[in-house]
Amino acid sequence: MPVITLLTDFGTQDAFVGVMKGVIKTLAPDADVIDLTHHVPPQDIKAGAFVLKTAIRYFPPGTIHLAVVDPGVGGARRPVAVRLGDCVYVCPDNGLLSHVLAEEPMTQAVTLDNTQYHLPHVSRTFHGRDVFAPVAAHLANGIPLEALGTQTDTLQTFPLSEPSVSGDTITCHVIYADVFGNLFTDLTEERTGGVWLAAVEAGGTVIDGLSNSYSSAPAGGPLALFGSSGHLEIAVRNGSARRMLGVEVGDQVTLRTRP
Amino acid sequence: MPVITLLTDFGTQDAFVGVMKGVIKTLAPDADVIDLTHHVPPQDIKAGAFVLKTAIRYFPPGTIHLAVVDPGVGGARRPVAVRLGDCVYVCPDNGLLSHVLAEEPMTQAVTLDNTQYHLPHVSRTFHGRDVFAPVAAHLANGIPLEALGTQTDTLQTFPLSEPSVSGDTITCHVIYADVFGNLFTDLTEERTGGVWLAAVEAGGTVIDGLSNSYSSAPAGGPLALFGSSGHLEIAVRNGSARRMLGVEVGDQVTLRTRP
Amino acid sequence: MPVITLLTDFGTQDAFVGVMKGVIKTLAPDADVIDLTHHVPPQDIKAGAFVLKTAIRYFPPGTIHLAVVDPGVGGARRPVAVRLGDCVYVCPDNGLLSHVLAEEPMTQAVTLDNTQYHLPHVSRTFHGRDVFAPVAAHLANGIPLEALGTQTDTLQTFPLSEPSVSGDTITCHVIYADVFGNLFTDLTEERTGGVWLAAVEAGGTVIDGLSNSYSSAPAGGPLALFGSSGHLEIAVRNGSARRMLGVEVGDQVTLRTRP
Repeated sequence: MPVITLLTDFGTQDAFVGVMKGVIKTLAPDADVIDLTHHVPPQDIKAGAFVLKTAIRYFPPGTIHLAVVDPGVGGARRPVAVRLGDCVYVCPDNGLLSHVLAEEPMTQAVTLDNTQYHLPHVSRTFHGRDVFAPVAAHLANGIPLEALGTQTDTLQTFPLSEPSVSGDTITCHVIYADVFGNLFTDLTEERTGGVWLAAVEAGGTVIDGLSNSYSSAPAGGPLALFGSSGHLEIAVRNGSARRMLGVEVGDQVTLRTRP
Repeated sequence: MPVITLLTDFGTQDAFVGVMKGVIKTLAPDADVIDLTHHVPPQDIKAGAFVLKTAIRYFPPGTIHLAVVDPGVGGARRPVAVRLGDCVYVCPDNGLLSHVLAEEPMTQAVTLDNTQYHLPHVSRTFHGRDVFAPVAAHLANGIPLEALGTQTDTLQTFPLSEPSVSGDTITCHVIYADVFGNLFTDLTEERTGGVWLAAVEAGGTVIDGLSNSYSSAPAGGPLALFGSSGHLEIAVRNGSARRMLGVEVGDQVTLRTRP
Repeated sequence: MPVITLLTDFGTQDAFVGVMKGVIKTLAPDADVIDLTHHVPPQDIKAGAFVLKTAIRYFPPGTIHLAVVDPGVGGARRPVAVRLGDCVYVCPDNGLLSHVLAEEPMTQAVTLDNTQYHLPHVSRTFHGRDVFAPVAAHLANGIPLEALGTQTDTLQTFPLSEPSVSGDTITCHVIYADVFGNLFTDLTEERTGGVWLAAVEAGGTVIDGLSNSYSSAPAGGPLALFGSSGHLEIAVRNGSARRMLGVEVGDQVTLRTRP
């Protein structure tokens, strides 16, 4: 029985997440449900999309990723299920898969319009419970993707920023800030091609070279490193880089390289 | 092996919840334990009772619901196990089942006074670990309810408020506020009998008609809808209705109907 | 298949914990993973060590406890696996096991230097995912401890404070404050040997005698009790003893005994 992961912005204060698990367990008693996080900033599709991307490679083939950051629930956005690599994603079609789709093209996608696989009564405000959870459970039970609805060839994505190079300067962009205020950029270690990074500038602060770990700066000191996500991170030891450097998602970070 | 759900006000900062799961796994290794929430406002029995009611219908028959919001732990209140519908509830007898009992009468209840099914040493402050968790595990293992203690016919409940109708006016009451500040009332969609709701007044703010989704008001604007719980909710888009409308649990909400 | 518990300071805002579970499920699909807590105060090894100690006795024999509070990740501290009593601990060697080791000596320990049991690529900042989670999964699969690395005889521990007795006075120390502001001391009920505690003084506040439950003081009133951990706790009913008494971890608490 495959693993089902859950990523939402529902928080854990109410029983929303527990109820989704109840729906899954009712339909697929042996499914293994794992929480990625339920604390995506409310309605922040871009943050959810990035967190999802950093997590998926660590799950077994066949995993079903159920992701609900869904400001448009009850409106026109479509619920979808998407096969991509060796996993299936069940989510609203609102850009949540943008990062995942940039790494690997989808092989199959359906609009979830076969209501036979939803709960009998679908509310206007909680499709996580009424549509996405039962669909994930049916997939775990072996129902084929094509049974869940009408095939579709297009999915919503938001444009992803890209680092650019000019002479000895790389310009990249903050695409995510985690709860500690660590800033994640769109520059991955692979993209630097092994070039030497002499200095990193973010929000007017210049950081000399790259660190190997968070503990290599003095307390309160800024540092830059390629973190566990593979992306260049700007951090402040025992502090929030976001607040102390005054840098937000969308801002530029500039790197000077040395041959 | 049945599902055991957990609802508490213990938070997740300490290991209290993990320890309860350890006790369950020690006694019933194959039990499936699902968190409803551990963030019921501390000692708020009424909030816990409402959250419990909204969740239970989404779990499989035979589920054991373990609920601990227990300001009287170590005092005179009794620990009980209650069969009701196709589930069993294990909890302090302090009103936590008030909403559940209003929907369906209990069929069997026992005071948990057979200490053979508790941990060998019962502390004065953590019956979740020492009484309720082992009892839930033994129930999951098939121990019959009547073995757990002395049969009882009465349970504590708190009085539930009720909507009232006078001419073209329905008066209902806020019975729960969730973490986002959404206000839940005691008026359910079934109770309106399909009547048309022309206007909703809460805390001096008048809202025209009902919405179909949270996204149908402008940002910062109030709205009223029958949400996923089936209850009339008052919300503010991207904001807290509780704070912005100055409405608290217990306050009245007035609706004007149109034939 | 044994239970694997997780205790970290990662929080649940990001997907760090979910990713560790993904790694475990990939390698040991049938392992049962239980969260102790992920809200140890950031980098607070002493708090993590105490919470771990209070939890472990409630888990089945054979449980694998994976604990990551790891300010030195990427530096010189060693990753270790330690057999102790009937459980195995997988953690950085930085004092996290200090309380556990004070109760029971280790029987076997290895430095985790056999990279065959780590993920293929080990990051500098997330050994929870790349080292500790895969090692715990391999242990759950039956890989023997000695296969995981080089045997070691010494582990880092921090000195534990001890209560002292002088005449009719016991002096003990606050070793942990939980999220509610309850203060836990190094005095256990066993250590008092049944002596009568007449008065407790903490931060200049004198509390008369011991309570049996949190509810036995008036609201806002301080109380002392032997709580569910077996340790003497100082609490304020419906309030924070830490804040209201101005007492912090490390401070002394004085008890006057009566024969």
